[in-house]
Amino acid sequence: MTDTPATRTLADVEEQDLLAIVLPRFSTRDGVLIGPGDDTALLRVRSGDVLATTDTMVLGRDWRDEWSSGADVGHKLVVQNVADIAAMGGRCTGLLVTLVADPQTPLRWATDFTAGVEEAAGAAGAAVLGGDLSSAPAGVRMVSITALGELDGDRAVLRGGARPGDALAIHGTLGRAAAGLVLLERGTPDEAPDLVLAQRRPRLDYAQGAIAARAGATAMLDISDGLLRDGGRIARASGIRIDVDRDALAGDIAALVPAVGPEAARGCVLAGGEEHSLLATFPPGVLPPGWRAIGAVTEGTGVTFGGEAVTRLGWDHFGPAAPG
Amino acid sequence: MTDTPATRTLADVEEQDLLAIVLPRFSTRDGVLIGPGDDTALLRVRSGDVLATTDTMVLGRDWRDEWSSGADVGHKLVVQNVADIAAMGGRCTGLLVTLVADPQTPLRWATDFTAGVEEAAGAAGAAVLGGDLSSAPAGVRMVSITALGELDGDRAVLRGGARPGDALAIHGTLGRAAAGLVLLERGTPDEAPDLVLAQRRPRLDYAQGAIAARAGATAMLDISDGLLRDGGRIARASGIRIDVDRDALAGDIAALVPAVGPEAARGCVLAGGEEHSLLATFPPGVLPPGWRAIGAVTEGTGVTFGGEAVTRLGWDHFGPAAPG
Repeated sequence: MTDTPATRTLADVEEQDLLAIVLPRFSTRDGVLIGPGDDTALLRVRSGDVLATTDTMVLGRDWRDEWSSGADVGHKLVVQNVADIAAMGGRCTGLLVTLVADPQTPLRWATDFTAGVEEAAGAAGAAVLGGDLSSAPAGVRMVSITALGELDGDRAVLRGGARPGDALAIHGTLGRAAAGLVLLERGTPDEAPDLVLAQRRPRLDYAQGAIAARAGATAMLDISDGLLRDGGRIARASGIRIDVDRDALAGDIAALVPAVGPEAARGCVLAGGEEHSLLATFPPGVLPPGWRAIGAVTEGTGVTFGGEAVTRLGWDHFGPAAPG
Repeated sequence: MTDTPATRTLADVEEQDLLAIVLPRFSTRDGVLIGPGDDTALLRVRSGDVLATTDTMVLGRDWRDEWSSGADVGHKLVVQNVADIAAMGGRCTGLLVTLVADPQTPLRWATDFTAGVEEAAGAAGAAVLGGDLSSAPAGVRMVSITALGELDGDRAVLRGGARPGDALAIHGTLGRAAAGLVLLERGTPDEAPDLVLAQRRPRLDYAQGAIAARAGATAMLDISDGLLRDGGRIARASGIRIDVDRDALAGDIAALVPAVGPEAARGCVLAGGEEHSLLATFPPGVLPPGWRAIGAVTEGTGVTFGGEAVTRLGWDHFGPAAPG
């Protein structure tokens, strides 16, 4: 990128020029009637309904520049928004991207962020429709995405439909992103680079959301704040109890022990956020391929692990235990 | 509001409880199939296409707590987003609202902000579909909205359709929000409380966007960064010149002189942002009622005022002249 030497900052370019640097990177696709550059975007909606969600990342709270590149941040921000669309059983069609940054932010960081968004949006089959640029106080940088999506005729899978007798099941991994964060915090990322990559660039198979919906999933979400906390959300919304099976998670925990030790491994699997694997409940006998049962839905309230009530739940956005 | 004493902060409530305080305030409306509280919202789209735009406000850059209440900020944020929908000729249907704030932010500010969003969303006929809450570094607070809308069968009015011979016309006021900011900066808001109100809570007749579209408007936007700068955007996108008529603005300028003086009055009318009045170009003879001609579209490039080339243009988001 010879046009963005490392010494230039956002303050060195006019907003118009910054948009010109950032926006043409985003290729349009079918269904984008109007892309970036006008007052709004215009997106064709085939099914007649649109899914909409938004998620924000803040420097120092959701990432550190020492640990994640701009491209990592762009990638992760796309994944956590598209995961929400997938968790409804939907398919992401378009993204609006907002960057609010200290004018002294290196221009290179912004172009790297854009590249990460572009790559991850492409992998999700989503177009970047537009966005917003804004300046922030010294040292502050935050990025935000709104994701739009469609259901392709399937019903949306909410959090409130789980019924006693359903199986609790997951598609994807548990605790790996959190274990990567533990390694970064300990200053030992080389212990397990694959876990650090899971923290920097979480991955999920978005199509599994629609597959679960068609298979009859009764409730679904993606694990953004930890298995127990997010399981508790299904329990509360559905008015049931979630029993997580201790044996079903033994392999997940054991796989992390060499890298982070037994106590942290257990914490990562049960309470680790940012994994974005899909967690759903299914009526008996309809588990789609690739999903594995990790518990059961029963009468009652709250979440238990191996039959014991759970207290430490995971991530609260305004609580005192926020990592830096 | 006995449930939100002034001494409580966001850190004093769990995110779940904060959502419970904020979200039920938003009444749903027809077309909102799934509102706040699940992974995403689901919005019915009648026309098959969805307009989407996003805009952010940052404490210290876009507002000061000494000058604007939380409700003022909520109101303004809604208006500037819905204005973008109107400027396409559309009607706003739904909003996603994001609050990223220092945990020491008074809870009262958040509930006031919510009340302002609620009131302004209601006035715009838009439902609040959901949003995001996130913590920010000490002293930092920002709010962001994504607005979704529909065209109701009309075509979208872009910025690039102005043709030589068209009239340049405006619906609404000029320079009043900027003049209100001048008074706040001078510490003399009592000079003209109506101008200060225009700064705190800009207003526009959203329906005029669709009216202009049906009348045949060839280009349109809302004035967010100043008449000359935003006029320049139409000129650039359309490949034409915008000639702003000096006489047509004489009354706008004269009306502000008593409050801010002649030089500031001229600057506010020509370069003042945040007014959100609709600026459009129309073929000869089709000006809808309530719109007034303020200039002409000719061959050429750029913007002139009374035939003279214009240099000072208005507001650039990363430039050095940002007010604080």
